[in-house]
Amino acid sequence: MQLGMIGLGRMGANMVQRLMAAGHDCVVFDTNPETVQALAKEGATGADNIQDLCAKLTPPRSVWIMVPAAVVDKVIADLRPHLQADDTIIDGGNSNYQEDIRHQKALRDIGVHFLDCGTSGGVWGRERGYCLMIGGDTDAVQRLDSIFKDLAPGMGDIERTAGRSGEPTPAEQGYLHCGPSGAGHFVKMVHNGIEYALMASYAEGMNILRHAGIGREDQTIDAETAPLANPEHYQYDINLADVAEVWRRGSVVASWLLDLTAIALHEDNELDTYGGRVSDSGEGRWTCQAAIETGTPAPLLTAALYERFSSRGEADFANKILSAMRYQFGGHHEKSES
Amino acid sequence: MQLGMIGLGRMGANMVQRLMAAGHDCVVFDTNPETVQALAKEGATGADNIQDLCAKLTPPRSVWIMVPAAVVDKVIADLRPHLQADDTIIDGGNSNYQEDIRHQKALRDIGVHFLDCGTSGGVWGRERGYCLMIGGDTDAVQRLDSIFKDLAPGMGDIERTAGRSGEPTPAEQGYLHCGPSGAGHFVKMVHNGIEYALMASYAEGMNILRHAGIGREDQTIDAETAPLANPEHYQYDINLADVAEVWRRGSVVASWLLDLTAIALHEDNELDTYGGRVSDSGEGRWTCQAAIETGTPAPLLTAALYERFSSRGEADFANKILSAMRYQFGGHHEKSES
Amino acid sequence: MQLGMIGLGRMGANMVQRLMAAGHDCVVFDTNPETVQALAKEGATGADNIQDLCAKLTPPRSVWIMVPAAVVDKVIADLRPHLQADDTIIDGGNSNYQEDIRHQKALRDIGVHFLDCGTSGGVWGRERGYCLMIGGDTDAVQRLDSIFKDLAPGMGDIERTAGRSGEPTPAEQGYLHCGPSGAGHFVKMVHNGIEYALMASYAEGMNILRHAGIGREDQTIDAETAPLANPEHYQYDINLADVAEVWRRGSVVASWLLDLTAIALHEDNELDTYGGRVSDSGEGRWTCQAAIETGTPAPLLTAALYERFSSRGEADFANKILSAMRYQFGGHHEKSES
Amino acid sequence: MQLGMIGLGRMGANMVQRLMAAGHDCVVFDTNPETVQALAKEGATGADNIQDLCAKLTPPRSVWIMVPAAVVDKVIADLRPHLQADDTIIDGGNSNYQEDIRHQKALRDIGVHFLDCGTSGGVWGRERGYCLMIGGDTDAVQRLDSIFKDLAPGMGDIERTAGRSGEPTPAEQGYLHCGPSGAGHFVKMVHNGIEYALMASYAEGMNILRHAGIGREDQTIDAETAPLANPEHYQYDINLADVAEVWRRGSVVASWLLDLTAIALHEDNELDTYGGRVSDSGEGRWTCQAAIETGTPAPLLTAALYERFSSRGEADFANKILSAMRYQFGGHHEKSES
Repeated sequence: MQLGMIGLGRMGANMVQRLMAAGHDCVVFDTNPETVQALAKEGATGADNIQDLCAKLTPPRSVWIMVPAAVVDKVIADLRPHLQADDTIIDGGNSNYQEDIRHQKALRDIGVHFLDCGTSGGVWGRERGYCLMIGGDTDAVQRLDSIFKDLAPGMGDIERTAGRSGEPTPAEQGYLHCGPSGAGHFVKMVHNGIEYALMASYAEGMNILRHAGIGREDQTIDAETAPLANPEHYQYDINLADVAEVWRRGSVVASWLLDLTAIALHEDNELDTYGGRVSDSGEGRWTCQAAIETGTPAPLLTAALYERFSSRGEADFANKILSAMRYQFGGHHEKSES
Repeated sequence: MQLGMIGLGRMGANMVQRLMAAGHDCVVFDTNPETVQALAKEGATGADNIQDLCAKLTPPRSVWIMVPAAVVDKVIADLRPHLQADDTIIDGGNSNYQEDIRHQKALRDIGVHFLDCGTSGGVWGRERGYCLMIGGDTDAVQRLDSIFKDLAPGMGDIERTAGRSGEPTPAEQGYLHCGPSGAGHFVKMVHNGIEYALMASYAEGMNILRHAGIGREDQTIDAETAPLANPEHYQYDINLADVAEVWRRGSVVASWLLDLTAIALHEDNELDTYGGRVSDSGEGRWTCQAAIETGTPAPLLTAALYERFSSRGEADFANKILSAMRYQFGGHHEKSES
Repeated sequence: MQLGMIGLGRMGANMVQRLMAAGHDCVVFDTNPETVQALAKEGATGADNIQDLCAKLTPPRSVWIMVPAAVVDKVIADLRPHLQADDTIIDGGNSNYQEDIRHQKALRDIGVHFLDCGTSGGVWGRERGYCLMIGGDTDAVQRLDSIFKDLAPGMGDIERTAGRSGEPTPAEQGYLHCGPSGAGHFVKMVHNGIEYALMASYAEGMNILRHAGIGREDQTIDAETAPLANPEHYQYDINLADVAEVWRRGSVVASWLLDLTAIALHEDNELDTYGGRVSDSGEGRWTCQAAIETGTPAPLLTAALYERFSSRGEADFANKILSAMRYQFGGHHEKSES
Repeated sequence: MQLGMIGLGRMGANMVQRLMAAGHDCVVFDTNPETVQALAKEGATGADNIQDLCAKLTPPRSVWIMVPAAVVDKVIADLRPHLQADDTIIDGGNSNYQEDIRHQKALRDIGVHFLDCGTSGGVWGRERGYCLMIGGDTDAVQRLDSIFKDLAPGMGDIERTAGRSGEPTPAEQGYLHCGPSGAGHFVKMVHNGIEYALMASYAEGMNILRHAGIGREDQTIDAETAPLANPEHYQYDINLADVAEVWRRGSVVASWLLDLTAIALHEDNELDTYGGRVSDSGEGRWTCQAAIETGTPAPLLTAALYERFSSRGEADFANKILSAMRYQFGGHHEKSES
């Protein structure tokens, strides 16, 4: 079927390519005209602006937005005058689900459907397919079914869940209508909250393995340093790339994130090209805020988020306060790094 | 080759079956004679006791121990008088790696090799193969190579890590010599520490999804209750089994643990057969202790461990102290459960 | 000076008494007429309703609101028609500071000042005085100075901070103008976030002391139970009331919360009258949400909040998921409480 | 009474001075002869070495050791040949309580008593007195009672705990016999574990206050940055020194650590002289290990410890792994600091 796509970054452009490969007809726009031209060469219909994109779509239109969360408001405002009743907007980016609820209410006034679609898969999605978590009215979701189905990975060669039989459900094909407006991004939000914690779990474990040889270093003896009671217990030199590799087969911790870790560590066991300043793009925060608002304990998810903040230096002032207190009560001077 | 197996519980018995299927010759013993007889019917050589097991093995013997960590000491003591120089003991259970260091030292005196082997795979291992993390002297590890290789899953149909080529390494086949004595259990220990945190990450996320409808409940208004500012943001009724299912395909959080979660939730979305008292069997604790001793921050791994403690009521007294303080400074009486 | 007080619960009534003792003239109202009558007997002017209260105050009026956060909106709406330009409302309860910003904007239209005042001190405040954290326009704050000063504890016999000299600042007397609208409740919010964490710190430590004798219990030996390596290290029977008491003098952890803990434990070392379901009243949540929004790592503050959620059973479903996973991969059945 | 003191650092020297002021007779030794001479000038009997110190003490001797934990073993070994039955060693430093159990056993063979004494008070103790947590045999503790009493702060002007009456107990005077060997250091260990968490609680809260103005900064708009939904909520410029000051009077979070924070922030609100690399000297680690071994959840105490590790860069590799994973699945490049 025909789909308009606004936003041709890493995600949007790949999705258009996957859809075109499945036979869909895409009209595309981005503020960067080069990305439009690139996809036009591959068979997409390029648009010069949002009005042009709407003009090139046959009503009832379906317009997929794939832009940073902070820009969604503006794109919807730009779209609004060029849409008509029964058209559909799909926000496939990483918006806060509360925005979806607001957007749907506002668009309902002019009869335009609004769907929210959490989209997971990263740069690998073009080939592997995208996992889609969808929120909104059932009718509007149904109409887009062929788009969702073709963006999703399908059953693939993943073993079927014990107890499931008969015609595969959409969930088994990698896309799910999660509930009314916002439900898709809510589930995607929690997905990312979990993602942060899974990543941190591996990272912490690997970091312990990397410290497994500290018993070989000379131990400092003073009142400021915790003594290492048994240096003979920490004499190992563990090959992290090999550990990630062996865990990929038969272990309880096998996962796609581990596969990626194995790739990265095989390239460079020291990860020297990375500085360790870890960004967060919103969903992890919103997940923890939802945990707090609903009174749900989520210590790991939140700790993972805070580790990212700390990686960017945001704990520095708190640490200075600790040093200041230690100096005040014990006359402890900070030890230098060396 | 020939292998003795002591301990025929869930893990040990399955491993014997996998080894026999690969053509190995197993001599088996367990304090429960029924499990010995059962395997004997399938082709294993049953032994009446440890002495008998040693007598039925041709030197240089290889004896694999698969018993609870707390029993390993006794089994090694029982084995010792019946072994001779160049025999090998492999502890494949969940022992603390520091015990391995001690055992190896003690057995070196009589020329017996000692290997530690962390074994992951659970009840699925018989079919899928076991992920093996091995510690000890290289010569002793080499001699057992065919046993390790056949217990391990092999390459299977798991995609090869980008950048790896040529003859598959043992790690790519699911077994790894991690370093000297203790290194295998050290890596397995951290593996389990990560496992706890991965599990808790999914559990916390699913729990948030389960709380996504609390805005539909009546809100209590008093000074003891945090008000829910926007009940309209929490009106969802998310199908957790479907969410677990959809995440299995194409999402960043796909993993084997998620596959298992999908099975469990498909059986019963409410998980009513479980009480939620979660055991821990040692490795999670040791991982956190290693983190502490080596000065490696591991907040998620430790939080996951503490969640298990709390699930068993071990935070109850701390909570009473909080209530007592609140009463003391604010005259706050506890709210009842209803 | 003259002050109206709406809300005569634990906090409000005590504050009126403290103000009257300092010579202020109080007009009081509460939906519960008995509390109004009780204070009227002590010299306050009782009001039958909000309109009556406003009528009994001489313009420019000052009306202090001391009600649950969820009721503030309604009280302000009820007050509004009876106020006039240059009157002042002070919200002294535990409102979210974002509400203050909203309230101030709305009241500015009719020339009414709005101050937010975080009030700490609990049931002890009447005697000890209240620590006040104030937000709003400087002029309005100044006008109420004598009220704030008399509610606050004053210098008391607390040692002056090294380096401070001259006329004591308001902060040294226990009240502080923290900044524009919302700043008072913002500082009070963080105060309570810290309070939760301080409380949890003591509670966790005391709980460890309470577990110091577990080595005397029989140890279970099975694959589901983490073995206690050195039972001889946990043979103590620590008197918690005495520990709290000794820490009150000369130790680094001395604090008012510890004083209260000492009282509670001296009454009953077992705290048997408490069930351990710990409420949270909003500020702890808002503090963590502010931490998340501002990208500030706050792992302890958030962990303290989550402990309270867990104390109320909100982790139960997450724990069931852990048990379900363990059963799926390892055939582990839950251990009963026995 | 007469007491030998070995170790004349910050703590030991101050304690000798406090004891001499109370009329006790001190024989002192340190590897640094200058500190010996300094105290000799004030009235102590200087010793040239450990043998000399023992010779100058009248049996039954009492020798207090005040040295780094890592040196205690050596000092006891040096003392041993010069002591005789019924002499007493007191380890007043920050030793692991498990060492006490070991030392007591070893010294029992020659009839020498061994007491462990956790000593809190820092550089302020000389004037304020030290909070003492004592472990060991009752007889030996009794014999030293006058020493403990005079090192301790006494009742002072701290309000008596409600419900306590009659002759003040030792706990009310600031010293407590906590139980058999190791109990003193066990309680001191947990004390320090709590101390770390209290410190971190204030530090996190202060850090949130310091971030209260981030809404005034320009917000970055891209897919890598979590958007700040309501910049108008974060427009404050909070004076941290004043906040610490106001909380000292009447608030729930008043404490000695807060008093110290107020001093430090009054000196320099920016704390520019501190780098924020925070040491830990063992007890915090041991507390968390005890929590883990006893199955007691202690998330705050452990988070506080891990924050210190992270402040020293020990999370850096874990953060690199996170960045590497993000690059692998999403093509995310790290953002630079500016």
